[in-house]
Amino acid sequence: MIETRLTDRFGIDHPVLCAPMALATGGRLAAAVSRAGGLGLIGGAYCDADWIAREFGAAGNTAVGCGFITWRLAETPDLLDDVLARKPAAIFLSFGDPTSFAPRIRAAGIPLICQVQTLADARLAAGAGADVIVAQGAEAGGHGEKRATLTLVPEVADWLAANAPETLLVAAGGIADGRGLAAALMLGADGVLVGSRFWASAESLAAPGMTEAAIAASGDDTIRSTVMDVARGLTWPGRFTARVLKNPVTERWHDDPEGLAAHADAIAADWKKGWDAGDPARANTFVGEAAGLIHDRPPAADILTAMVTKAEALLAGGWKRRVQ
Amino acid sequence: MIETRLTDRFGIDHPVLCAPMALATGGRLAAAVSRAGGLGLIGGAYCDADWIAREFGAAGNTAVGCGFITWRLAETPDLLDDVLARKPAAIFLSFGDPTSFAPRIRAAGIPLICQVQTLADARLAAGAGADVIVAQGAEAGGHGEKRATLTLVPEVADWLAANAPETLLVAAGGIADGRGLAAALMLGADGVLVGSRFWASAESLAAPGMTEAAIAASGDDTIRSTVMDVARGLTWPGRFTARVLKNPVTERWHDDPEGLAAHADAIAADWKKGWDAGDPARANTFVGEAAGLIHDRPPAADILTAMVTKAEALLAGGWKRRVQ
Repeated sequence: MIETRLTDRFGIDHPVLCAPMALATGGRLAAAVSRAGGLGLIGGAYCDADWIAREFGAAGNTAVGCGFITWRLAETPDLLDDVLARKPAAIFLSFGDPTSFAPRIRAAGIPLICQVQTLADARLAAGAGADVIVAQGAEAGGHGEKRATLTLVPEVADWLAANAPETLLVAAGGIADGRGLAAALMLGADGVLVGSRFWASAESLAAPGMTEAAIAASGDDTIRSTVMDVARGLTWPGRFTARVLKNPVTERWHDDPEGLAAHADAIAADWKKGWDAGDPARANTFVGEAAGLIHDRPPAADILTAMVTKAEALLAGGWKRRVQ
Repeated sequence: MIETRLTDRFGIDHPVLCAPMALATGGRLAAAVSRAGGLGLIGGAYCDADWIAREFGAAGNTAVGCGFITWRLAETPDLLDDVLARKPAAIFLSFGDPTSFAPRIRAAGIPLICQVQTLADARLAAGAGADVIVAQGAEAGGHGEKRATLTLVPEVADWLAANAPETLLVAAGGIADGRGLAAALMLGADGVLVGSRFWASAESLAAPGMTEAAIAASGDDTIRSTVMDVARGLTWPGRFTARVLKNPVTERWHDDPEGLAAHADAIAADWKKGWDAGDPARANTFVGEAAGLIHDRPPAADILTAMVTKAEALLAGGWKRRVQ
């Protein structure tokens, strides 16, 4: 058992959260992680109320949280009340200023988890009253920014120790096995948020073809880009890009933003068809650099057990064993 | 004591190498790290033979290695023989294909350390016969590429375990204290290469004004750019950028490559004046995201001792202690 402030605060067995990944972390995956001793968060993301309601249903009676894209939630703020009424295990906000949402979440007695990409964001989240700050590095899959997990986590840890010592810290970005979990604990995190590794689980909603592409890929094969968002007409704030597997779409358009803008409608239509078909050559696979550490698609419980078992062994001195 | 394959192979006390930083790691810094129980490497970088000779002189009788920018060494390949004749503790090559240089280094009985930025590079370096592979993440200061330390190290570790188990692995990029050292060991590294933290040491050749700027900065204040190289007329291969502190030069030109090219001569002249004056507003400070973890400029031996002491405490279970 790896006991930390995170396991204490949430009453869970393992200091591992499943990231609320858009269109991947449905109720089945979130609940599987919670039942296995971690905490799963449904990917509320772009705020499709029907989708969220269905996935809470799929989670059944298992305690799960729900995550939102903050700037998107600001466009449909009433949705937060609907989700709070479900008594989620936590609300998770990322990509935008959480300040305006924090009072309602706290008033409902629900823990607020804020994901941040910079030290400046961490200060903002702490000021808003976040119970947990997730420091997300650029190696993460999907949307994120530029800082690396390895430096952002200890820098935020130092700032929290001096300014908000009650606030918990979770590391995200690039953590896919027990080595990453153990490393995050060394950096000063109370636990980890895992995306890509659970994205490639049996319970994930990720398309089979995209999962296979990720399993075949190295971390070298990923890129941070805005091509997918521009093509889809998503108005992401300029500082955020998304890490995906490179494919013909990013190869063609990543360095040609003017051409992309000029042909956005046609590109979007084809991208959408590719997405619906689960075709990694026509739409992009949302996965992080940890793709290079992912070689299969097991049940989420097996992923969590293997991760914790390996981390326990490393923390007990197993790092000393090396091939000679 | 933290004993690893790296300490065994090099006969050193601590698994910590001082990066061969251009114009910063002279003989005095390299020797200070070696005398304190690590291994220092003179920053041979752009292959100024007189500078290298002077700095080997400054190292005295202390065992130090020497690092080169591989694509630059290819322009003056005879320089390698001059340095090999000094019986360095190691030759370190980064940023280019090491294959053509490896036979001479091995024939001289000198350990070959190859720094890589991708899994593909690691395979190339192992094929060339590297004794040690340094996996460098993008959070590093100075030149580098896009992968993050947190994912690149375990991915290279897995590849080496399967294909070249005798080859040692060192983590680089973002490691500035005992937390980073302990985390790197969890990820599967045999040790760490430390740049920025030793750059801000008493023995470093870094300008005082630039060191002060780095101490005042957060990791948020750094950027990967090619502005400095374009302005200086350095013909770096396109895949490599350098992480520096943002300043008015990068703010003005980073997103305007055409303007930069059109005014390169004037920009270069002013940048050079700023560099000679040690002015962080006119020339760029070469430091990594670890700037946010650096708050002073102590002797290198104190840095090394604090790093190892902290890592030992964490590895002994100190990670369990958290502010409550």
